[in-house]
Amino acid sequence: MWRATVLTLYPAMFPGHLGHALAGRALGGAWSLDARDIRDHAHDRHRSVDATPAGGGPGMVLQADVVAGALDALPTDGRPRILLTPRGAPLTQARVRRLASGPGAVLLCGRFEGVDQRVIEGRALEEIAVGDVVLSGGEAAALLLLDACVRLLPGVMGDAASGDDESFEGDLLEHPHYTRPRAFEGRPIPDALLSGDHKAIERWRKMRARADTRARRPDLWAKYVARTTGGVDKPDKVE
Amino acid sequence: MWRATVLTLYPAMFPGHLGHALAGRALGGAWSLDARDIRDHAHDRHRSVDATPAGGGPGMVLQADVVAGALDALPTDGRPRILLTPRGAPLTQARVRRLASGPGAVLLCGRFEGVDQRVIEGRALEEIAVGDVVLSGGEAAALLLLDACVRLLPGVMGDAASGDDESFEGDLLEHPHYTRPRAFEGRPIPDALLSGDHKAIERWRKMRARADTRARRPDLWAKYVARTTGGVDKPDKVE
Repeated sequence: MWRATVLTLYPAMFPGHLGHALAGRALGGAWSLDARDIRDHAHDRHRSVDATPAGGGPGMVLQADVVAGALDALPTDGRPRILLTPRGAPLTQARVRRLASGPGAVLLCGRFEGVDQRVIEGRALEEIAVGDVVLSGGEAAALLLLDACVRLLPGVMGDAASGDDESFEGDLLEHPHYTRPRAFEGRPIPDALLSGDHKAIERWRKMRARADTRARRPDLWAKYVARTTGGVDKPDKVE
Repeated sequence: MWRATVLTLYPAMFPGHLGHALAGRALGGAWSLDARDIRDHAHDRHRSVDATPAGGGPGMVLQADVVAGALDALPTDGRPRILLTPRGAPLTQARVRRLASGPGAVLLCGRFEGVDQRVIEGRALEEIAVGDVVLSGGEAAALLLLDACVRLLPGVMGDAASGDDESFEGDLLEHPHYTRPRAFEGRPIPDALLSGDHKAIERWRKMRARADTRARRPDLWAKYVARTTGGVDKPDKVE
């Protein structure tokens, strides 16, 4: 069983949307989720967990000693310890795959202005960002990260998550999809997809994945080009 | 009131974590959330919404006509219509700020392999990705996007979201934070932050924001350098 532990000031936010659909049905089977209240590790009778930023400014900062207490109360079991923060490394599908193939994860959700830097360094937390955006707390990011991991666990989604053809595999976006009806408001399904010729279908899909990545994600395209052609950027002939 | 409408196969996933904390307290006041079931727009008695991909392959594709029905049932009121998909443009704080300053958003959550490309084009949907990852559906991304928007609405967070100093403003990550206790496991708070000298504090924070962006996010740093120095990359002297 893949085990997620979340440290948060709002344990009632979990499992949230992950209590539904495939992830929800697999909860307690393929994976477990334990949401713990950071506030249980406060030291005073007011149960305070935050204080004003050193140097001044708006907002509050989660205290190092309180967060350390919450982290240190967990067994040392080799699971990566991740802080969700806009200062972190952008989450990638490659990181999700490595996480999903491991024993689970401990996810610390920041709140307010952030977490005291000294516990991040003192406990060697991995810092991860989900989207280049600022959230009200790390909870939305933790739930999204868990969603991405859980769908990859054996038995949760079956074939559909096998992944060779998914976005971000091989630094490409996935090709677009079509299904019935055959015509929608005068828009046809591309001929190649209806040809029954598996090689032509593969060729069309790869061409569209390349063209869309090049147009939409020059950053991914540059990685793809560097890896596959040694840096020569040549657009495909459109079929 | 800022109005969010979500089109999803799992309306019970909403408001999810946004029903708690500041976003939850502001729900029905500063913002509203209307989660609608795409399945209500199915055409047959089995209420089917998906079919197999044209050209073959695993999984199912959301049908163009069903999704069009769900979109067309909404009033035309100028709100942007966004599909959450890994093929979309990466979500940025700048896009979040523009969304939050508008009337709201219509968020379409993809599921399965994706949504038929023809309704994306036919309804001119804006495609947005949250993180370079594949999710079980767009719901986790929609909730994260809403979280990022709602905290910026007037009255929801107050000063703490004023934002000049937040990550991604001016293409920089935010500086790290510290608070009491003064020493944590032998780690002190940086002297500059305890100096009481507001100019020194500002200088230290800017220097750390620049140094951390340069080390952690070369992509953001390149934008910052291009915008502020015309492309000359010079590391700061460390104080």
